[in-house]
Amino acid sequence: MATIRDVAKLAGLSVATVSRAINGSGYVSEESRQKIEHAVKALDFRPNEVARSLFQKKSKLVGLLLPDISNPFFPLLAKGVEDYLQKKGYQVILGNVQENPERANDYLHAFHQNNVAGVLSAVDNDYAIYDKVHPLVFLDRVGKDSEYSIHADDVSGGAIAATTVLKRKAKEIIVISGPAEIDRSKERLQGVLSVLKQAKSNYKIVNSQSFLLEDAIITAQTVFRQFPQVDTVIAPSDIHAIALIQEAYRRNIKVPDALQVIGYDDIPISNLVVPPLTTIHQPAYEMGYQGAEMLYQLMNDQQVRQKKLILPTRLVERDTLRKKETQ
Amino acid sequence: MATIRDVAKLAGLSVATVSRAINGSGYVSEESRQKIEHAVKALDFRPNEVARSLFQKKSKLVGLLLPDISNPFFPLLAKGVEDYLQKKGYQVILGNVQENPERANDYLHAFHQNNVAGVLSAVDNDYAIYDKVHPLVFLDRVGKDSEYSIHADDVSGGAIAATTVLKRKAKEIIVISGPAEIDRSKERLQGVLSVLKQAKSNYKIVNSQSFLLEDAIITAQTVFRQFPQVDTVIAPSDIHAIALIQEAYRRNIKVPDALQVIGYDDIPISNLVVPPLTTIHQPAYEMGYQGAEMLYQLMNDQQVRQKKLILPTRLVERDTLRKKETQ
Repeated sequence: MATIRDVAKLAGLSVATVSRAINGSGYVSEESRQKIEHAVKALDFRPNEVARSLFQKKSKLVGLLLPDISNPFFPLLAKGVEDYLQKKGYQVILGNVQENPERANDYLHAFHQNNVAGVLSAVDNDYAIYDKVHPLVFLDRVGKDSEYSIHADDVSGGAIAATTVLKRKAKEIIVISGPAEIDRSKERLQGVLSVLKQAKSNYKIVNSQSFLLEDAIITAQTVFRQFPQVDTVIAPSDIHAIALIQEAYRRNIKVPDALQVIGYDDIPISNLVVPPLTTIHQPAYEMGYQGAEMLYQLMNDQQVRQKKLILPTRLVERDTLRKKETQ
Repeated sequence: MATIRDVAKLAGLSVATVSRAINGSGYVSEESRQKIEHAVKALDFRPNEVARSLFQKKSKLVGLLLPDISNPFFPLLAKGVEDYLQKKGYQVILGNVQENPERANDYLHAFHQNNVAGVLSAVDNDYAIYDKVHPLVFLDRVGKDSEYSIHADDVSGGAIAATTVLKRKAKEIIVISGPAEIDRSKERLQGVLSVLKQAKSNYKIVNSQSFLLEDAIITAQTVFRQFPQVDTVIAPSDIHAIALIQEAYRRNIKVPDALQVIGYDDIPISNLVVPPLTTIHQPAYEMGYQGAEMLYQLMNDQQVRQKKLILPTRLVERDTLRKKETQ
């Protein structure tokens, strides 16, 4: 591998001059700069990325902030991001916030100080912490003041879920609402309730604290304890739905005959559980892929056609809802 | 926020001198260096992390290489790593290799060029690519030539799985072997077979290509197609076991009465599926936590008591094995 000495020798200049040029730490004539550039190319010299990013003020590194990689939705999103950006020669480094907002700040600090070329964030903290991060695209969980973002159409996703169960003999409906501070779950709930209210259905709401697996388990127990007559559940995530189906199994309640359940997300495991889960598909991979494309355009001063992208959701019919009522 | 100019002014030196000191790009007298150090402290000046890492040759960044974050085992491992290192003031950046060895090389390159203070890797590529990464600790998947490593005792984990099923009326045993090139699955298989051979049991082996979910599904279909009489399956991962249980559900085969299954890993979802999965627990979180501790000791020139740590596994009894035979 070529060293800075080889570059200096080929360019006919001192090591100090080459170092100044690469580090941007002093005057170097245009003529010398050109000689150095030729030598760098000829020798395929790779200066330390740290030195180079000082020189160029840009790196080939993108920071991706995720709320929780143990929530299977986010690895799908990350895959979309990585597949797009690696094709374009960027490396994606991940910050796993573990649903702890303080960690988001630390990661952004580290991303910034390591000169990332841009940031993708699925953590919708107070916008102030994103102050110095530029360009920035929000994925899924979208900050209020965000300029560039991509997420799923959760209002319509929630509406599809509610419309679907209403066709399947639903007498006692429980709607599990996700955490109120997350815009995604708020909109999902909004979509569900608009349909249920319009149909004048009989429903109750049970709140869940977060999308963490532990909270899904607690919520499942709460549902059966508070509403033993429940025959239909609209869940805010597949994890919530799967936890509920297991709690039904423990209580010897048959799914879908005695209890029907619809999930949300369509994470890979939802097709592997017993019974296979009927759910609302979110295009997680596409969200990551297209969000990364938007960031790429921003990083490379290309035009972004649409600053706020909303992707459609759809029903995936499997085995956890009862048959349609014939009318 | 203080700038380099403020530091220069307070130190009574030129900006160029301060820059040279911080960038390590030229001679600076000991006297000047001390003045700069005082000014930096007095002003709480925070040089760009990039510049600082050039200066100090150390950063507070650790690179973590994972084979596949969509495999639920690895987020658990990552959580252990992050919990330990963030307590110690380090940021962990993740490289998600997606079971594609070429990406490992790219990530290591990026880690190295961004002056990470150390690397934790669960990707056991050819050791040559780790050449420049130092210090380095392997987690779970352990490179042949690795000096520092931590993984579970898979030989004994496999033996526990086999011993357990042998007590539950197992006539036609299928052992699913994980990918042969991964030491973890090789040792698991070795543990399983040593017990089955000694007991002179009737068993067949079905190979699985990887720990990816798609391969687990294909393998499940293969098992039933090739061995319709199977009544017992020893799986190399919980994902394999869960895929198998669903395939049994689709074929109307009752678990555990007609088919008993034991998993491996004890990922969180294994306790959420129907029926709850009997499996071998791997201490993934502890593995991450203790591996991070080992790396911390290496990064800070502390003594490492044991260079190769092996953590015990244990049986977690749930509902996918038949009752013990009374003798």
